[in-house]
Amino acid sequence: MFENSERTDLTELGEFGLIKHIAEHFPLSGATSLIGIGDDAAMIDAQGNPVLVSTDSLLEGVDFDLMYTPLKHLGYKAVVSGISDICAMNGKPTQILVSIAMSNRFSLEAIEELYLGIKLACEKYGVDLVGGDTSSSRQGLVVHITSMGLAVNEPVKRSGAKAGDLLVVSGDTGGAYMGLQILEREKRVFLEVKDMQPDLEPYDYIVGRQLKPEARWDVIQMLNEMGVVPTSMIDVSDGIASEIFHLGNASGVGFEIYENKLPIDPQTLQVAQDFDLNPTVVALNGGEDYELLMTISQEHFEKIKNNPDLSIIGYATEQVGKYNLITNAGNTFGIRAQGWDHFDGGATK
Amino acid sequence: MFENSERTDLTELGEFGLIKHIAEHFPLSGATSLIGIGDDAAMIDAQGNPVLVSTDSLLEGVDFDLMYTPLKHLGYKAVVSGISDICAMNGKPTQILVSIAMSNRFSLEAIEELYLGIKLACEKYGVDLVGGDTSSSRQGLVVHITSMGLAVNEPVKRSGAKAGDLLVVSGDTGGAYMGLQILEREKRVFLEVKDMQPDLEPYDYIVGRQLKPEARWDVIQMLNEMGVVPTSMIDVSDGIASEIFHLGNASGVGFEIYENKLPIDPQTLQVAQDFDLNPTVVALNGGEDYELLMTISQEHFEKIKNNPDLSIIGYATEQVGKYNLITNAGNTFGIRAQGWDHFDGGATK
Repeated sequence: MFENSERTDLTELGEFGLIKHIAEHFPLSGATSLIGIGDDAAMIDAQGNPVLVSTDSLLEGVDFDLMYTPLKHLGYKAVVSGISDICAMNGKPTQILVSIAMSNRFSLEAIEELYLGIKLACEKYGVDLVGGDTSSSRQGLVVHITSMGLAVNEPVKRSGAKAGDLLVVSGDTGGAYMGLQILEREKRVFLEVKDMQPDLEPYDYIVGRQLKPEARWDVIQMLNEMGVVPTSMIDVSDGIASEIFHLGNASGVGFEIYENKLPIDPQTLQVAQDFDLNPTVVALNGGEDYELLMTISQEHFEKIKNNPDLSIIGYATEQVGKYNLITNAGNTFGIRAQGWDHFDGGATK
Repeated sequence: MFENSERTDLTELGEFGLIKHIAEHFPLSGATSLIGIGDDAAMIDAQGNPVLVSTDSLLEGVDFDLMYTPLKHLGYKAVVSGISDICAMNGKPTQILVSIAMSNRFSLEAIEELYLGIKLACEKYGVDLVGGDTSSSRQGLVVHITSMGLAVNEPVKRSGAKAGDLLVVSGDTGGAYMGLQILEREKRVFLEVKDMQPDLEPYDYIVGRQLKPEARWDVIQMLNEMGVVPTSMIDVSDGIASEIFHLGNASGVGFEIYENKLPIDPQTLQVAQDFDLNPTVVALNGGEDYELLMTISQEHFEKIKNNPDLSIIGYATEQVGKYNLITNAGNTFGIRAQGWDHFDGGATK
C-alpha cells in the first residue's frame, strides 16, 4: 500500500502531511460515504439523509495542563471543540459520544467535575451525550469526543471557495492564545513562589477564551436566517494562517488578507503588547478560538458588511497557493502557518 | 448534579459502575437521539433513518503490548473491536473514523503498518475510513475508533430478553484469552533468554484469536437470512460472564448456563489444561473473542439448533439478577464476572 520503505520521522511530515498521506490510501467506496477525510467532519448518508460526524482527542500534557485547567472547563472545552467541527460544516450539533481514559490517581469526584462541564456544554448547545467508554490509562488523562450533527441547509465543505469570494471570520481571534500565555506565566510564577495566588481578573476575557471557549452555532443560525450559505468554511482551531491553507488547498484558490481588518479584542491587543508580541501575528497564528472562517460570495456583501459578529478580512484570489497579508503600511507579505513547537497542539505564535 | 462530595476511588465503582453513574445524569432530550448510553452503540435519527454509532479506545500498556502485537494486527483489531459493536446492535458497519495519538518514537513506516491493518479490516468488512485526527502523545500509542452503521432490520438492544428465551453465542470463546497467556509467557521467556525465538505455531488458532480477531458480521447476515431477530444482543469483549450481567440487568431477567454447552475450541481446552486453568472459567470469563451473545425466542429453536456457528448455551429466567452455571455434574453455581486485575482491559481469567 505505502511505497516508501525507509524510516521517516513523523516530524518531517507534520500532522497535516501525515493525514494527507493516509487519506490518499483510503478512497471512499461505500455508497453511504458522502464526505471523507479532509473536512471538519465526515458525512454519511442514512437513506437520503446526511449525518455529520467528527472526532477530536485532547491529551493531558499535550492539549491541556491540569495545573491551570479546571476539569469542569476541560469537559466544556472538549465538547465545544467537537461540536465546533459540526458547525464548520454548516451543521447543527445533535449528539456526542465521550471516551475517557484516566489513571487511578483521579477520584470519582474529579471525573464528575469533568462530566459536569460536559453536561453544561450539552445543555448550552442542545446536544445529547449518547455513548462512549471509559478505560484506564497508565499515564495522563485522555478525553475523546465524537460529535454528530445534521446539515442545516446544505453541508459546507472546505473546497467550495471561488476567486473573488469574501474571506470572513466570526468574532475575534488571538485571544485564546494570549490567554494561554497568561496562564503559562502564572504557572511559572506559582512554581517559583509557592504561596502566590494568581490574579487573573484583569485578563478575564482572554483567559476565558482559552479555558471556556464557545462554538459558533449562533453564527450558523444567523447565516441561515440571513439566507447566506458560505462557499467554504472551517473552524479556527489552529489559527487563521493555518486554516486559510486548508481552504485554499481544498478549493484551489489563494487569499489576500488585510492586516487592518483582523478582528482583535482590545485585551488581546494590550496583552500581546505587554508580552512584546506582534498582535497581527497573534491574531493570524493563535489557535483555539473556535471561530468560523469562511468564504462568502460577493453577492451577499450588503447582508454581512455591518454585521458585528462577522469581519470581512480579505478575499479569495486566482493565485492558487498564494496567501498574502497586506499590511497597514501597504506592503505585501507571504503568510505561512508556523509549525513551531507548541504546548497545546493548536496555538502557535 | 452529582450528590456525593467526598473522595471516592474509581476502583470502588469499576468501569461499569462509573458508566452507570454518568448515564443517570445524562437523560436523552433531543428528538433525534434514539438510543443513548447503555448499549453497544448509540442510535440517532436522520429524519426517520437510524444511524448507529459507537466508540472504542485502545491504549498502549493497558489494552495492548507492542512487544508482541504487530502494528498491522493492532490496526486490524482496533477496527474489528469497533465494528463488532455495530454488529451487536444488528447493524451493518459502514464507516469508521480513526484517531491516533502517538509520540515521535514512532516512524512514519510504523504508522503505515498500523494503517495497513486498518485498511485490511476496512476492505474485509466493506467499511470506509471517513475521518479522524492525529495528535502527539507524550507517552504511549492511543488508537481510538468511532464506528458507524445502519440497522439491518431493526436494532437489537441489550434490553429485550424475555424469560424463556434461548441464550445463544456465536463461534467459540476463551481462545483470545488463552492466546494472550501464550504471548505473555513467550514475552517472559524472551526477556529472560534474549536470543530465544518463540515458536507460536502450535498455538496458531488461539494466538490468532488474540491478535487478529474477527467481527461476526457474517452471523448478522446469516440471522437476517434465516429471519431471526434476536431479542437482545451484545458482543463478547469482556467475557460471557460479564456480558450476561449486561443483558440480564438491561432486560430484567436472569440466566442459566449449561457448562457442557459452552463452545470451547480443542486448542483452547488443551492450553487451558497446560496452564492448569479450568476451561469453563476460561470460556466464561475470557474476553476479546468478539463473538456475539444473544437471546433468541424459542420459536426459532428449529432454525438454529444445528447451526454450526451458533451454540445454545442456556436460557433466560424470571429470576432477575440470578446468573447460574449448571455444571456437568448437575450442580448449580452462581456466576460472577471476575474483576481481577488484568492486562488487556478486557480479558479476565
